[in-house]
Amino acid sequence: MRNRGAASTENFVKAGYAVIFLYRRGTCQPYCRSLPDDPFLECFEFPDKTNIQVNASHLEAVKMAVMDQQEAVAEARLIKLPFSTIYEYLQMLRLIATALKDVGPCSMFYLAAAVSDFYVPWKSMTEHKIESGSGPLDIRLAQVPKMLSILRTNWAPEAFCISFKLETDSKILIEKATKALRKYKVHAVVANELSTRKEEVVVVSSNSNVVVRCDREKPESIVEDNLIRLIVDRHSAYIKESHT
Amino acid sequence: MRNRGAASTENFVKAGYAVIFLYRRGTCQPYCRSLPDDPFLECFEFPDKTNIQVNASHLEAVKMAVMDQQEAVAEARLIKLPFSTIYEYLQMLRLIATALKDVGPCSMFYLAAAVSDFYVPWKSMTEHKIESGSGPLDIRLAQVPKMLSILRTNWAPEAFCISFKLETDSKILIEKATKALRKYKVHAVVANELSTRKEEVVVVSSNSNVVVRCDREKPESIVEDNLIRLIVDRHSAYIKESHT
Repeated sequence: MRNRGAASTENFVKAGYAVIFLYRRGTCQPYCRSLPDDPFLECFEFPDKTNIQVNASHLEAVKMAVMDQQEAVAEARLIKLPFSTIYEYLQMLRLIATALKDVGPCSMFYLAAAVSDFYVPWKSMTEHKIESGSGPLDIRLAQVPKMLSILRTNWAPEAFCISFKLETDSKILIEKATKALRKYKVHAVVANELSTRKEEVVVVSSNSNVVVRCDREKPESIVEDNLIRLIVDRHSAYIKESHT
Repeated sequence: MRNRGAASTENFVKAGYAVIFLYRRGTCQPYCRSLPDDPFLECFEFPDKTNIQVNASHLEAVKMAVMDQQEAVAEARLIKLPFSTIYEYLQMLRLIATALKDVGPCSMFYLAAAVSDFYVPWKSMTEHKIESGSGPLDIRLAQVPKMLSILRTNWAPEAFCISFKLETDSKILIEKATKALRKYKVHAVVANELSTRKEEVVVVSSNSNVVVRCDREKPESIVEDNLIRLIVDRHSAYIKESHT
């Protein structure tokens, strides 16, 4: 979801969490949301060919990308793990989940990565490039295995678990999020509509649907500031419950 | 093809060309091949919170990414145009080609971007997300229109034109490259095999197949150094011919 993962990670680190950031190669990195598209062309200068300088207009963005990011990594609050294919994503998620099993209710899975619903299973992949030039190509895509059920029941059943539902059609969004909540028995589903997802999300859980927005008065406010505050509160309550 | 476009661009600029770099978002940029995967985490420091420093081990890479790149842009030898979808790629290629039509034989198309052979035509795209959860998905992909023929015959018929052929099966590579040479009437086809493409390519043209390798003695040598030298020589000969 563009930079939702990056913005959420920054807020989780701020709230005291240690974050394993499992991200698709090429997507926005934590602390890098304010950098321009082409930072090496736009942010820096070598005025005397030996000393580098940051252009004043990008100084805050570069400081955040360098200092804040390095601090989070140095304090062991951030590990970044890249994936390219859905195979890598699923395997790494399983490794992380089983490694965190013993952390129990204190661990959280915040599944914001928009991975594909359909794929070509590894065993059906051809060895060589598919020939083109002989008309259209008919392919059958299999459903990606619903690892969320397996995560909840096998890999890390005690972890607090948040999944995401993105739809382009607002009419079916809440209904589908509610279905996913029941089917996968997650603790909340963050429901997004494609066109408004930067301003507003709905946190769907068993006893309430809460609309979360960015603060209108603060121009730099993002929806993740309030979203992560809510999620962290819910997680704290969940940990307390688990210990009683 | 990973960083072939970036490395080739640097060599074309060095040879005096002005380059329009049409690239897929997220791919390697010219002058940035030596940067680490995560430059903001690895290359910089703010020792006193106001002045930035480049770590000694990455100084040359950062200088190249900043100084050499900015110099190429400032001298109007480099314009970078990003695309994400095949629709954007095809439209931008057409715009560039028709804009360069009057440059005639002095213009060159070096088509190294590995764009897809198959796609979903715009008019067949659904408005909303495809529902998952009801078994496999059967789709028919159409062939991407063979714009290379149109480029050669309509958009920029006098331009010097190099296309690329990548195969995973070395046995059919040269045969397929030769077929493409005849079919699209390009001036040369650069034939790559997936596993050896960084060490060796074959430049297939109507009167010869030339194997191009990096220089074994120089560790920093890349295959593009020799490839672009050959292509530039061929292009110069083509320009001379056109004027006689």
